[in-house]
Amino acid sequence: MATLSDIGVSATINILTAFAFFLAFAILRIQPVNDRVYFPKWYLKGLRSSPLRGGAFVSKFVNLDFRSYARFLNWMPAALQMPEPELIDHAGLDSAVYLRIYLIGIKIFVPIACLAFAIMVPVNWTNETLERTNLTFSNVDKLSISNIPTGSRRFWTHLVMAYAFTFWTCYVLKREYEIVAAMRLHFLASEHRRPDQFTVLVRNVPPDPDESISELVEHFFLVNHPDHYLTHQAVYNANKLSELETKKKKLQNWLDFYQLKYTRHPSKKPLLKTGFLGLWGDKVDAVDFYTSKIDNLTKEMSLERDRIMSKGNSVMPAAFVSFKTRWAAAVCAQTQQCRNPTLWLTEWAPEPRDIYWNNLAIPYVSLAVRRLVIGVAYFFLTFFFMIPIAFVQSLANIEGIEKAVPFLKPIIEVKVIKSFIQGFLPGITLKIFLIFLPDILMLMSKFEGFISQSALERRSATRYYIFQFINVFLGSIITGTAFQQLDNFIHQSANDIPKTIGVSIPMKATFFITYIMVDGWAGVAGEILRLKPLIIYHLKCFFLVKTEKDKEEAMDPGTLGFNTGEPQIQLYFLLGLVYAVVTPFLLPFIIVFFALAFVVYRHQIINVYNQGYESAAAFWPDVHGRIITALIVSQLLLMGLLSTKEAAQSTPLLVTLPVLTIWFHHFCKGRYEPAFVRYPLQEAMMKDTLERAREPNLNLKSFLQNAYIHPVFKGVDETETEPASQESEQQPVLIPTKRRSRSNTPLPSKHSGSASP
Amino acid sequence: MATLSDIGVSATINILTAFAFFLAFAILRIQPVNDRVYFPKWYLKGLRSSPLRGGAFVSKFVNLDFRSYARFLNWMPAALQMPEPELIDHAGLDSAVYLRIYLIGIKIFVPIACLAFAIMVPVNWTNETLERTNLTFSNVDKLSISNIPTGSRRFWTHLVMAYAFTFWTCYVLKREYEIVAAMRLHFLASEHRRPDQFTVLVRNVPPDPDESISELVEHFFLVNHPDHYLTHQAVYNANKLSELETKKKKLQNWLDFYQLKYTRHPSKKPLLKTGFLGLWGDKVDAVDFYTSKIDNLTKEMSLERDRIMSKGNSVMPAAFVSFKTRWAAAVCAQTQQCRNPTLWLTEWAPEPRDIYWNNLAIPYVSLAVRRLVIGVAYFFLTFFFMIPIAFVQSLANIEGIEKAVPFLKPIIEVKVIKSFIQGFLPGITLKIFLIFLPDILMLMSKFEGFISQSALERRSATRYYIFQFINVFLGSIITGTAFQQLDNFIHQSANDIPKTIGVSIPMKATFFITYIMVDGWAGVAGEILRLKPLIIYHLKCFFLVKTEKDKEEAMDPGTLGFNTGEPQIQLYFLLGLVYAVVTPFLLPFIIVFFALAFVVYRHQIINVYNQGYESAAAFWPDVHGRIITALIVSQLLLMGLLSTKEAAQSTPLLVTLPVLTIWFHHFCKGRYEPAFVRYPLQEAMMKDTLERAREPNLNLKSFLQNAYIHPVFKGVDETETEPASQESEQQPVLIPTKRRSRSNTPLPSKHSGSASP
Repeated sequence: MATLSDIGVSATINILTAFAFFLAFAILRIQPVNDRVYFPKWYLKGLRSSPLRGGAFVSKFVNLDFRSYARFLNWMPAALQMPEPELIDHAGLDSAVYLRIYLIGIKIFVPIACLAFAIMVPVNWTNETLERTNLTFSNVDKLSISNIPTGSRRFWTHLVMAYAFTFWTCYVLKREYEIVAAMRLHFLASEHRRPDQFTVLVRNVPPDPDESISELVEHFFLVNHPDHYLTHQAVYNANKLSELETKKKKLQNWLDFYQLKYTRHPSKKPLLKTGFLGLWGDKVDAVDFYTSKIDNLTKEMSLERDRIMSKGNSVMPAAFVSFKTRWAAAVCAQTQQCRNPTLWLTEWAPEPRDIYWNNLAIPYVSLAVRRLVIGVAYFFLTFFFMIPIAFVQSLANIEGIEKAVPFLKPIIEVKVIKSFIQGFLPGITLKIFLIFLPDILMLMSKFEGFISQSALERRSATRYYIFQFINVFLGSIITGTAFQQLDNFIHQSANDIPKTIGVSIPMKATFFITYIMVDGWAGVAGEILRLKPLIIYHLKCFFLVKTEKDKEEAMDPGTLGFNTGEPQIQLYFLLGLVYAVVTPFLLPFIIVFFALAFVVYRHQIINVYNQGYESAAAFWPDVHGRIITALIVSQLLLMGLLSTKEAAQSTPLLVTLPVLTIWFHHFCKGRYEPAFVRYPLQEAMMKDTLERAREPNLNLKSFLQNAYIHPVFKGVDETETEPASQESEQQPVLIPTKRRSRSNTPLPSKHSGSASP
Repeated sequence: MATLSDIGVSATINILTAFAFFLAFAILRIQPVNDRVYFPKWYLKGLRSSPLRGGAFVSKFVNLDFRSYARFLNWMPAALQMPEPELIDHAGLDSAVYLRIYLIGIKIFVPIACLAFAIMVPVNWTNETLERTNLTFSNVDKLSISNIPTGSRRFWTHLVMAYAFTFWTCYVLKREYEIVAAMRLHFLASEHRRPDQFTVLVRNVPPDPDESISELVEHFFLVNHPDHYLTHQAVYNANKLSELETKKKKLQNWLDFYQLKYTRHPSKKPLLKTGFLGLWGDKVDAVDFYTSKIDNLTKEMSLERDRIMSKGNSVMPAAFVSFKTRWAAAVCAQTQQCRNPTLWLTEWAPEPRDIYWNNLAIPYVSLAVRRLVIGVAYFFLTFFFMIPIAFVQSLANIEGIEKAVPFLKPIIEVKVIKSFIQGFLPGITLKIFLIFLPDILMLMSKFEGFISQSALERRSATRYYIFQFINVFLGSIITGTAFQQLDNFIHQSANDIPKTIGVSIPMKATFFITYIMVDGWAGVAGEILRLKPLIIYHLKCFFLVKTEKDKEEAMDPGTLGFNTGEPQIQLYFLLGLVYAVVTPFLLPFIIVFFALAFVVYRHQIINVYNQGYESAAAFWPDVHGRIITALIVSQLLLMGLLSTKEAAQSTPLLVTLPVLTIWFHHFCKGRYEPAFVRYPLQEAMMKDTLERAREPNLNLKSFLQNAYIHPVFKGVDETETEPASQESEQQPVLIPTKRRSRSNTPLPSKHSGSASP
């Protein structure tokens, strides 16, 4: 077990690392040559232009103003200066609310830490339990609950503290939920006119033998929302087209590369082998080769585009239906349209850039099956992921490599390399898996059929959190793979599980302190340095960049990454809440993490990250729910720990805590969650009325005409898509029907489940 | 353990009892004097008049047509003859769908029993495990899974059968859900115009300093549903008035009694003591006493009525808002109105007679707290109900009684009586508790704040089912109070719980067979006899009845009693599914129960029960969910049982069963439940359009004017309630506001959660 001085050494190392990162960052960021790596957000907004224009040659690349080096930490106050409303304007509500998660961490843990150090630490310290035993112990343990003798009356302190911490956490959570809900509603209300305010996504349009999907949609909504329907846009299956587009971009890139090569060395025509990976085959002129390939692809794409537009079978059974008012869209999104609840499913259309187009056409039954499949797959991934990794590890040993690539044998047999491979390979297999885990989870979510990027990220975040909870948190505490844990838990009584975990918790405090310093402190400081984008950007600049536009494409601002970032923070909430009563010594480390991360991410959000979509903080219920989960876990574990300490009289009092917490969660869910799921009619009506008063002659139809067009069609041929746009809006629309079969039966026959609009 | 012949004896007794009941019923029902006890439904419908008019004197009371005695079982085919659509017309959809629960029982268990007897019984029978052991066993056990040796390969049969039974049950459930959903939608669609189709209940109207609640409601809906709002009715707090009404009725009853007494013996004026329970105090003339009391009460009531109508403070913050179309009502019921989701809560208005008026004005926070309180109370009721009963039992012993009423001592000391009391009292305490349990649960639901009778009954049914599951099913199997079970379960591993229960299941088969015969067979047969209403009716007739109207009031048709009946049936589903694989011998007994109960309840629904409300089968999702629960319980217990039989290789295969079942439940929930919760716009629009075509000049406002008036106001002063009814409907309504404070701010201030209409 680590002593205080061990932790001191570790802390020194990590603080020095973090400072080194900050120093490197401070020097690198003021070099003009790195400007696009550290301030891409401003370029994207068009508020900053390349510093390479004008000025002395050297000062284009290196900052010679030495005074600026002295103020090397001045980015920190700068990051904190931008007020929140401006931040929302600048980077969107999602980012601003994301930062509030760190703030919550500070708000929760600072008072808790103060209280714990003022009351609980003295109570723990003034015992001599550990000294009387012959166990080795550290000073950290003397500060923890381990130092209290079994059956002592001092446990009442911890009990009272557990209540105090729970109430404080709940209070902060409730206030924060309230604020975020108000922010979201205010954001939605003060937004400019956006297509998604008027638009509803309809899925599972039933097939009809007599009418095309587009006609069917129009008729259905003209009949069922007669005074409100405005227009609709069909969804085309353009997956193949967008594949071709990606391919074309890649080829264009190669063409650019070879053209650049040619312009640099006009004497030598760049040649290319046509075979696999350019290793063999006929040699051809690379520029000609790629030009002709791109030409072919362009032709193919235009054919494909025509095919999609002309034939009806590329129209998917889904549509974006736009209404004349926000009120009508709110109504349509919140109601059931058809007596069969699996047809004509309506929901708010996500922002156009938020849509995940591939999933728009999955039928209801398939969705249910996919959910089952992914649920089972995720279970196995979480509990049995060690099995394939162990298998790969067993393959990736020295003998295996020697067999596969015999000519490497002499090199491998060198002792240093051999031991390096043997020690390194198993670890790297696991590390590679963990690096790819978020992508695997994202793939799972995509397969499950969510239709917006934001929903995909939210679901992946939930899964990642559960994985971390089981494999990092529980895995570190009771040391064993998830499957072994599962096996243990099945064979233990419901009473013993919290006991088993609770008992080992105090012993793991020093481990988690080190973890927080490495992963939290140094990791966050590393984030601001952006080493990977920096290197890639300079490599690209050196090899590829010719024009200003290329440079713009070379910079990779990245996004906030909710699906990996948020579960990471939640792990700290969990650690903080679990250790608050047990080993309060851990709390300052967590507070430092939250403060540091808040500043760093605020800086990154202002200067670096590009916003992929705007979900108006739709993720908040998830964040709230996970902190509540952490709170309940901490209460259960405390119950287990105290029951082994023979403070059994505390159990009934402790049992009420999770009951109250769950009730609080339900209360918050009912009180605030609707703001994140539904759109109140009052708000919609208010905005509609205001808009009508301000712009009485607005042509909404033209505004909405092409808002929800597949990105591959964007800017190609806007006139082609909707020939019917000249129609007058004011006239009552007569609905012609092509229907033969049921044109005389206005009511569906008894017990029929089909839809007849 | 009971042998086959024991069960035979028990069966004979119960069959004889049932036959005795049927015989008694057959004789009693054809006596004209009992007509109102056995055919009240027809009287209520006005299709049958009293047989006392006309005919010979004797034949008014006794049936002299001896041929009718010969056909004493002919009510059975008669009960089955009425086709379902006619039954729905006659007794409502609720009753018709309730009968389908019995039908489901037959549909599920007949094929399962056939399969089990064809395949599993021979497999079980042809072993000699039990004969080789020295345990005593019966022939019933020879047919059960106990007869298979541990580790045998024959368990594969049971595994396959478990799959077959699960799939068959799910198939039946899915089909039935589909049919019931279609029936509900068809019923709603083909209904006549009803006020609740146009009306939405609004609760939690926020207080406003400038406007009365009625004005506020009108303004809010005129602003937010401008083209659709028609009218609204305020909800008055008439709880005190309805109390007075009940009191008056009771006094009227006494008055009638004494007047009758006086008319029979005109010489003797009936006297009355005014003190406690009429035991002491001054003697007065009873008729005068009650007349004056009723007069006072009538005055008080009219004062109270005036007070309610005149003062604003009796108006509750709730209202019934009616719209011009069903479409608009469907929209309003399904959407969120206000940015604060705890204000302006809208939901479908229940049928007028279904409303539970007392609960209409509970604010949101209070509802959440009540739910927590009742949740905790219910937990204690279920697990610790034995504690107060044991306490009462310890009080109600011989010594206690002797102390309380010393003059009874000589009687009690008689040996027969003493032993009778000693044996009887503890039992009767428990029995009294169990009789009152449904009422206690109903009180709990009322306190919880549900606003309709149907919701109250549904919630009570759920609670009763859980109570029965824990205290009857588990209590019988592992014999111990619920609290002991809880204690056991906490200290056992998750793996051991199904094992513990699973092992004792085969041993309890004979007990449950007896239980089914007593509670199911004889109990159902007793239901048809209606002994209690019969006796009460004749007592009333003898003592009280003077006029035809009195006679009508004396008959008590009763209702279906969903809150007690349905959990009872569910217990049989649970027993059937659990024992299907373990002891198939139990299945025929269950099938007989379902068939018998189906016929009996069909007869009762046609001839006896009065329908309290019509919820259009809103209870079906509950029924479906509980059968699914029973299925999952049966799978888990089978898993536990087989793992003790060393058929461990079956566990992974058995684990998939509950996973699939839960997935099936989710699928059904998504696919069919919306039909029971929401109202599709397409349907609403269709009915609106039809109605507009058929009755273009319908005055809907007058139709809806007084539909939702508190029952105590019914028929008193209809003109007083809504003075504003003369307004024209066609003119666009200008909305005058009395608001001073915020009349110039159309948008709410930033982050404000308040509502500004």
